[in-house]
Amino acid sequence: MQIQQGSSALILFSGGQDSTTCLYWAKNRFFNLVALSFDYGQRHTRELESAFKICSMAEVEHVILETSIFNQIGGNALTDDIKIKDMGKKDELPNTFVPGRNLYFLTVAAAFAYQRGIHDLVTGVCQTDYSGYPDCRDETIKALQETLSLGMEAKFRIHTPLMWLTKSDSIHLAIKEGALEALGQSHTCYEGEFPPCGKCPACKLRSQGFQEAGIADPLLSE
Amino acid sequence: MQIQQGSSALILFSGGQDSTTCLYWAKNRFFNLVALSFDYGQRHTRELESAFKICSMAEVEHVILETSIFNQIGGNALTDDIKIKDMGKKDELPNTFVPGRNLYFLTVAAAFAYQRGIHDLVTGVCQTDYSGYPDCRDETIKALQETLSLGMEAKFRIHTPLMWLTKSDSIHLAIKEGALEALGQSHTCYEGEFPPCGKCPACKLRSQGFQEAGIADPLLSE
Repeated sequence: MQIQQGSSALILFSGGQDSTTCLYWAKNRFFNLVALSFDYGQRHTRELESAFKICSMAEVEHVILETSIFNQIGGNALTDDIKIKDMGKKDELPNTFVPGRNLYFLTVAAAFAYQRGIHDLVTGVCQTDYSGYPDCRDETIKALQETLSLGMEAKFRIHTPLMWLTKSDSIHLAIKEGALEALGQSHTCYEGEFPPCGKCPACKLRSQGFQEAGIADPLLSE
Repeated sequence: MQIQQGSSALILFSGGQDSTTCLYWAKNRFFNLVALSFDYGQRHTRELESAFKICSMAEVEHVILETSIFNQIGGNALTDDIKIKDMGKKDELPNTFVPGRNLYFLTVAAAFAYQRGIHDLVTGVCQTDYSGYPDCRDETIKALQETLSLGMEAKFRIHTPLMWLTKSDSIHLAIKEGALEALGQSHTCYEGEFPPCGKCPACKLRSQGFQEAGIADPLLSE
């Protein structure tokens, strides 16, 4: 990817493994970087603490926007008091799917970026391991990029460095981009536990990735 | 337009002239209708009062979602204390343009509708009189419809009954759909004045429409 010198980007930053890798990827490619996190009533504040720590380590400006929209809408396991299941019934989406969440985050990110004259957005969504989340697919992201560009008369580019990587590939990318140490601060566990529970779908996927990459998870060796 | 009997729709409802016309249009075509308004820190609460009154008149369920995102992002005349100008400099967007606002509203509307099993969204956006707002254009709405459908794996339809109508045509449609009386409760004035200021871009556009349609504005004859 060719990036113009002096250009700016905004990264959608959850403080998780994937967005941490992307934060370092973006920091190595853009002159100015802003990390945007959402305080959206997630069940655990550990996510935002991780985001804050990693931005300090990486010396990246960190902005947190508050939104209660998903609490007001309700009906999912990431913001409500619903037990997280691995997957729903056959052909159902997992109950950690918050319908429209990534579309929402990216739309707000674009609106915020627009105010700062930033047109490059970076997000850690990934089609390979997308767990059935339709808003992580390349096709959705491309459609959204077009919609945001038309809707704000600006040429937005949504960069998705992890789109076609396996979890193992992502870890190798993290090492290459200098993000490994920061991954020790990144948060993954759906249960919000620290040390991580090791049993929820997110912990299992993370652990599998590190195993396949043959790398020790710095989060566990802290 | 053919609508299946028994189908449900959600209308994005500001309490303004255009969405009031669309509310009656939708009420005449869908079996169940939900009106969704946003309390987004608009400068005047009159908008939401109008929305409430009109939903009561029309016997339509009214839901208000709160969001402070645009206050947090800042930079526009509809939520900030910035004087409203008719248009910006040549080739600039007017300063009432809240970048991404309609994209945001429709994305949240779709997320909310999804939870209720509703896939038909209705909005009063209009290309003809779009005042330079790029998120009111047909091309943008079509791209967004595609994005929402992909992102939530649902077949959303965004209905835009006013898209190709002039303001005068819209008033004739309002009469046909039985919305004229309700227009007497609808709010338009950017300055939030009642009786309306008559001078702001929104008042001028409304007044021009009624003049061209040869109809007295029921808001002024209250």
